[in-house]
Amino acid sequence: MYELYRQANGITVVVDIFRATSAICTALQNGVTEVIPVASIHDAKRYSDDDDVIIAAERGGEIVDGFVYGNSPLSYINNKHIQGKTLVLTTTNGTQAIDAAKEDGELVIGAFSNLSVLTKWLIEQNQDVMLLCAGWKNRLNLEDSLFAGAVVDVLLNNGFEYDIDSDAAIISRLLYTTAKNDMLKFLENSSHRNRLKNLNLENDVEYCLTLDTCNVVPKLAGGSLKNALKVQISN
Amino acid sequence: MYELYRQANGITVVVDIFRATSAICTALQNGVTEVIPVASIHDAKRYSDDDDVIIAAERGGEIVDGFVYGNSPLSYINNKHIQGKTLVLTTTNGTQAIDAAKEDGELVIGAFSNLSVLTKWLIEQNQDVMLLCAGWKNRLNLEDSLFAGAVVDVLLNNGFEYDIDSDAAIISRLLYTTAKNDMLKFLENSSHRNRLKNLNLENDVEYCLTLDTCNVVPKLAGGSLKNALKVQISN
Repeated sequence: MYELYRQANGITVVVDIFRATSAICTALQNGVTEVIPVASIHDAKRYSDDDDVIIAAERGGEIVDGFVYGNSPLSYINNKHIQGKTLVLTTTNGTQAIDAAKEDGELVIGAFSNLSVLTKWLIEQNQDVMLLCAGWKNRLNLEDSLFAGAVVDVLLNNGFEYDIDSDAAIISRLLYTTAKNDMLKFLENSSHRNRLKNLNLENDVEYCLTLDTCNVVPKLAGGSLKNALKVQISN
Repeated sequence: MYELYRQANGITVVVDIFRATSAICTALQNGVTEVIPVASIHDAKRYSDDDDVIIAAERGGEIVDGFVYGNSPLSYINNKHIQGKTLVLTTTNGTQAIDAAKEDGELVIGAFSNLSVLTKWLIEQNQDVMLLCAGWKNRLNLEDSLFAGAVVDVLLNNGFEYDIDSDAAIISRLLYTTAKNDMLKFLENSSHRNRLKNLNLENDVEYCLTLDTCNVVPKLAGGSLKNALKVQISN
């Protein structure tokens, strides 16, 4: 679907709430210096001899055999082993979405964990914004649409306008305004939450729906995601 | 996207509210004996020497040059020229969606104009139901999702259950329950409504959002859509 909406310019926000983009924000917030998203497990393994690299691989909601890390954001909190390291990450949906959009315009990472700083940054940039929801194996999902709606809602309240073909944005915003007071309850029947519930990942679900735990805007440059806010300050 | 959801069995409901599936129901309700959906204008022209055939062709919301009929449902109401005729129809989105799904299971046509008889018929069949929203040039649109939500709402209230991967159905149902008391207002900002407004097709929009003007369930058999209810009675 991305091909239908792609834009050569502007900013693409990649969204994979359960859990890739939540994990990326959390890792950068908690000591990782950069995240290198790779599409395949094979590509991830190429970094296995590098002591400065933590490798993480997830498929189907579980850590891939032979790896220590997956895409659980909680595994990157209060973790002394990741301090100052590069995180190489491959996941079922999120890193594939990054891969699809990486050649077009600017690419940043969105999650409920960075909603406020992300939207503030987007408003400052004042460019066209496209929200790319990773979904689950190319299907639409509820939690990514919900987050897209949260971003749409903030941007519209700050002078942005809908694009011509923006029915998906209208729907997402309605989702968010309906669900925002109890997102956990709203997602009770969603496919992905139930998938994670079956994997005993309820804590992850709750964390991924918590607003503003991170003050980072992960931005892609040279194949690596670094915090755009930190880059701005160091300039 | 259809490839991701296709099912070999069960019933697929094709939805293109503005305006192909609304037009198909209306034509069958108002004197046409069958509708033959064709994907290309070239295929439609092959019927041009047949006196028993009315040909209709729409692209981009307008009647294609050289044709008298497009996909305006209103053109098929109180029209003596179409009585007892076969309607050959090609449209931008709707007939393409029919073409994509025609090999899988049973295929019927849904629109607000046949919501009650369609859902009653679906409940009687008691099979898996898939709602295929034609959208606009493969993009999601608001009105088709809204109708899908109306069907989901009726089916869930009558003992049907969500499939495992049914986030799209959950979202559609929320749309419908939010919008059902004033769908015209709800669609005010939608892309397609504005496209039709620009073409002076406001009457069509209003008609296409009116419930239960037709008592037909167009069902595909041998490349042609006929009223399944009539077929049942004649058995």
